[in-house]
Amino acid sequence: MDVLRYLEERARLVEREIDRWVSPKFKPEILAKATRHLIEAGGKRLRPCIALTACEAVGGRPEDAIESAAALELLHNFTLIHDDIMDRDEFRRNVKTVHELWGEPVAIIAGDALFAKVFEAVAANARRLKLESERVVELFDTISKASFELCRGQAFDMVFEDRRSVSEKEYMGMVSGKTGALTEASAKVGALLGKGEPKQVEALASYGRLIGVAFQMQDDVLGVAGNQKKFGKPIGSDIREGKRTLVMIKALSTAPKRDRAILLRVLGKRDASKQEIEAAIEVLKRSGAVDYVAEQARKFVADAKSKLAPISKSRAKEILFALADFVVEREF
Amino acid sequence: MDVLRYLEERARLVEREIDRWVSPKFKPEILAKATRHLIEAGGKRLRPCIALTACEAVGGRPEDAIESAAALELLHNFTLIHDDIMDRDEFRRNVKTVHELWGEPVAIIAGDALFAKVFEAVAANARRLKLESERVVELFDTISKASFELCRGQAFDMVFEDRRSVSEKEYMGMVSGKTGALTEASAKVGALLGKGEPKQVEALASYGRLIGVAFQMQDDVLGVAGNQKKFGKPIGSDIREGKRTLVMIKALSTAPKRDRAILLRVLGKRDASKQEIEAAIEVLKRSGAVDYVAEQARKFVADAKSKLAPISKSRAKEILFALADFVVEREF
Repeated sequence: MDVLRYLEERARLVEREIDRWVSPKFKPEILAKATRHLIEAGGKRLRPCIALTACEAVGGRPEDAIESAAALELLHNFTLIHDDIMDRDEFRRNVKTVHELWGEPVAIIAGDALFAKVFEAVAANARRLKLESERVVELFDTISKASFELCRGQAFDMVFEDRRSVSEKEYMGMVSGKTGALTEASAKVGALLGKGEPKQVEALASYGRLIGVAFQMQDDVLGVAGNQKKFGKPIGSDIREGKRTLVMIKALSTAPKRDRAILLRVLGKRDASKQEIEAAIEVLKRSGAVDYVAEQARKFVADAKSKLAPISKSRAKEILFALADFVVEREF
Repeated sequence: MDVLRYLEERARLVEREIDRWVSPKFKPEILAKATRHLIEAGGKRLRPCIALTACEAVGGRPEDAIESAAALELLHNFTLIHDDIMDRDEFRRNVKTVHELWGEPVAIIAGDALFAKVFEAVAANARRLKLESERVVELFDTISKASFELCRGQAFDMVFEDRRSVSEKEYMGMVSGKTGALTEASAKVGALLGKGEPKQVEALASYGRLIGVAFQMQDDVLGVAGNQKKFGKPIGSDIREGKRTLVMIKALSTAPKRDRAILLRVLGKRDASKQEIEAAIEVLKRSGAVDYVAEQARKFVADAKSKLAPISKSRAKEILFALADFVVEREF
């Protein structure tokens, strides 16, 4: 299964739908530019694809979930815009971030506007399908709870930057919120819109949570060992920002004292030189931490697949398997 | 009717409900502190009161709308936290703003977290009442559209700061979004939860929009002619921030040339001296702009009341009248 081609095909559907909700004609003009900037810069549209495929996997048609699939991408982009301000990131998807281009006030309001549109799109979806009341409530409940979890995850991510040490368990909790909550919601929302049985909805939700965590682990790996051009963000920026990635946590707990000192000297040092960053990355690699995290990510993906047992065999299920593999095989 | 006592009574109900959704036990701790800070500092709880009373006015019990009433206050506080960052305001409700106390990243995430909780609380409300599907969708649609309008209004407010001139019509459009959208949604949500007829829902929505606009006009007046202690924000900060309030727009279009020069010299001057601000306020007053705006606000309130014709006579309707009067008679 060529998952990249599949992603691209579905992405086009989703992008057309996104244009309905985030119009190039928004007024004031700056709001149109700022809300659309990152969306237009690309992205894998992974969350919408999970939703559309989960919908299909329980017997629905992918079109049944299209507004919500777009909504999940808006929700994702809202968090990216705000996270970039908080983390002072200058690049994403190989373009300048929203606050770098238009300043923080515009980036704040652009994120808020995208967040507002999320629920409008989901309401339109529920109305079109004439969903029963309980399912509508479940839909909104799922997305709002995931949104809160995202915020909490991001808050922990920031708090951890100022902590002396962060445990692997604490990292797992943070990432489960920051990334797992939205991929879980994506799968669950798709399953709800496809009118899945409670057991199927639950299975897909678990699958979604696990691939989200795997996704973040892979992101941590690519952030130090990836190809900058493909990855779209400066390699090593996590280190400069003092992020407690699993790679960093693992290396700090296993590397020999001298290597640990190299890491601690540069962790959170915004103006670290290229040489210092490269030395730190070298330590992360030789400590075995990069391999360890890549291995952990693969375990989570295997676990995610096993959760799909209650879903009967179908093309959609195969795609969900391929999507899970893609999460840890991707270079971008 | 002692509307202040009424507001206080209802406010207590609402505050208990808010504690359910914005818990002092949130983790990380900073998230609990930052989300609760402005809420605990006070506020009139005007929007929840509109919702509870609108619910009653169409035959519901105020309790029927309690989760959504709390949600509307969360939505309001989310916008305040983010607006304060964007406007670089240092004080509100007589306390330091969230970003002043904990920095911008924490203020951004605190606002986002409150916004996420809005929809969770509304979902719980819909579930408890076992509302029919169409009404549930309408509920979420109303709140999400209002949220987007709020963002758009705020974006216009910022854009106007850099404009050479802003017309009264442009101001009206901006304020209708920035303040009117949420008061409209508050009345409409209350009416929907009280199972109002479409005509009643529409009447209450119009009432809400108009008192919101009147509220903002009164805010513009209090911002230059109010009592700082009661108002809770530094008098004249609108001028320093270059805000195109209706008072400023009117004075710029009617004051004699020399007075206009006094205003333009200080408009948007962040480091303006106390004397300069006082001189500008003096100009605003003697130009007749302050009186004009206060008079406009009273007209909007009268119009708002007239919209309530389809609502039959009741104690709740009397309270809605009193709330409308309060909007233009308040000093805080």
